[in-house]
Amino acid sequence: MPHITMSPELPPGTPGLFQYRPETGRPMAELAEVLLRNAHSMSRGDRELIAAYTSALNHCGFCVNTHREVSARQHPDGRELVEKVLADVDSAPISEKLRSLIKIAGAVARSGGDVTEQMVTNARNAGATDTEIHDTVLIAAAFCMFNRYCDGLAALTPDDPAAYPPMAEMIINEGYRMCAVGH
Amino acid sequence: MPHITMSPELPPGTPGLFQYRPETGRPMAELAEVLLRNAHSMSRGDRELIAAYTSALNHCGFCVNTHREVSARQHPDGRELVEKVLADVDSAPISEKLRSLIKIAGAVARSGGDVTEQMVTNARNAGATDTEIHDTVLIAAAFCMFNRYCDGLAALTPDDPAAYPPMAEMIINEGYRMCAVGH
Repeated sequence: MPHITMSPELPPGTPGLFQYRPETGRPMAELAEVLLRNAHSMSRGDRELIAAYTSALNHCGFCVNTHREVSARQHPDGRELVEKVLADVDSAPISEKLRSLIKIAGAVARSGGDVTEQMVTNARNAGATDTEIHDTVLIAAAFCMFNRYCDGLAALTPDDPAAYPPMAEMIINEGYRMCAVGH
Repeated sequence: MPHITMSPELPPGTPGLFQYRPETGRPMAELAEVLLRNAHSMSRGDRELIAAYTSALNHCGFCVNTHREVSARQHPDGRELVEKVLADVDSAPISEKLRSLIKIAGAVARSGGDVTEQMVTNARNAGATDTEIHDTVLIAAAFCMFNRYCDGLAALTPDDPAAYPPMAEMIINEGYRMCAVGH
C-alpha cells in the first residue's frame, strides 16, 4: 500500500504519482521526454538502457521493468542485448562508447563525486560528445530521483510481469508527457 | 574544471548547467519552483532546510551552501536553527513534525526503500498531511538528482563563501525559474 492515500483509478508506479500531483508531475514528465525521446545522437534504445541500468542499481523494480521493456522494444539489438547489459556491463557486446557512458551512469548512481576524470576521458576517447556525457549524467541523476520517488512513497506496482509490455507500448507510442495527464 | 566544455559566462553550479542545456534546465527549474516556493502548508524556510539536509547527506557542497543560505534567510528561527539541524537533527529544537519529515528525507537520500511505515506513521502522528509527506519525499528525491547532476559533471562552484549570500538573495527575490534563463 502506498504511504499516502491515492485513488485506485490512478495508474501504477511513477505515472500514478505524476497524476496525483500534476504540478510536479508535468515538469518531471517533460524532463523524461527531453532526455529519453527528443532527437539525439544516442538512440532511444540506448538512452532507455541507461535508465534501466541506473534503476537496477537503485533496486527500483517498477522502473527497471518499465525501462528495460521500453529499451528492448526500441533497441536494434533487442531484448537479449538489454538483458546482457543489465547482467554484466563489462562483458556485454556493446560499443566501447556505450560501455564507458554506462560506467559513468553507474558512478552517478552511487554519488556525483564518483565520476572520475578517467571515466570521462575513456568516454571521450571512445567518441562520446559533450552532449552525450552531459545527458548520460543527467539521465542517471534523474532516475536517482524517479526511483526514490516511486519507492519512497511505496507506489503501487504490478505484480504481474505481463503488465509491463502494454505500458511500454503506450510510452513508445504516446511519449512521457501523457504520463502526467492520463487518458 | 567541469567534465564538459562550458562557457565561462555561465553562472556556477546547477544554474550554469540549466543554462547550458535549457531544454532540460527549464523543467528542473520549474520542479524546484513548485516544490520549494509555491504556496504550501510548509514554510519556504522548512522546505529549503529539507533540501539543504539532503544535499549534505549527498556531500554536494554547492547545493548545501546555497540552500542553507536560502533557508536561513527565510526561516523565522534563522541561521542558528538551520545549522543545528544540519549538525544533528535529533537534538535540534524543531517540531516533532518537521523532525519526522527530515528523517524521511534522510531515508530517501539512502534509498527509496528505506522509508518505513513507522517513519510515515511518526510523521502522521505528529500532524503531517499526505501532501507534506509526498513533497518531503519528492524534495529529497529531487535533490538526489540535483546533487548528482552538479557533482557528476564537476560544475564550477565558488571557492569564496561570500558568493552564496547574493545567489541566495537572487533566488529569494526572483525564484528558481530565472536560474534556467539567466539575466
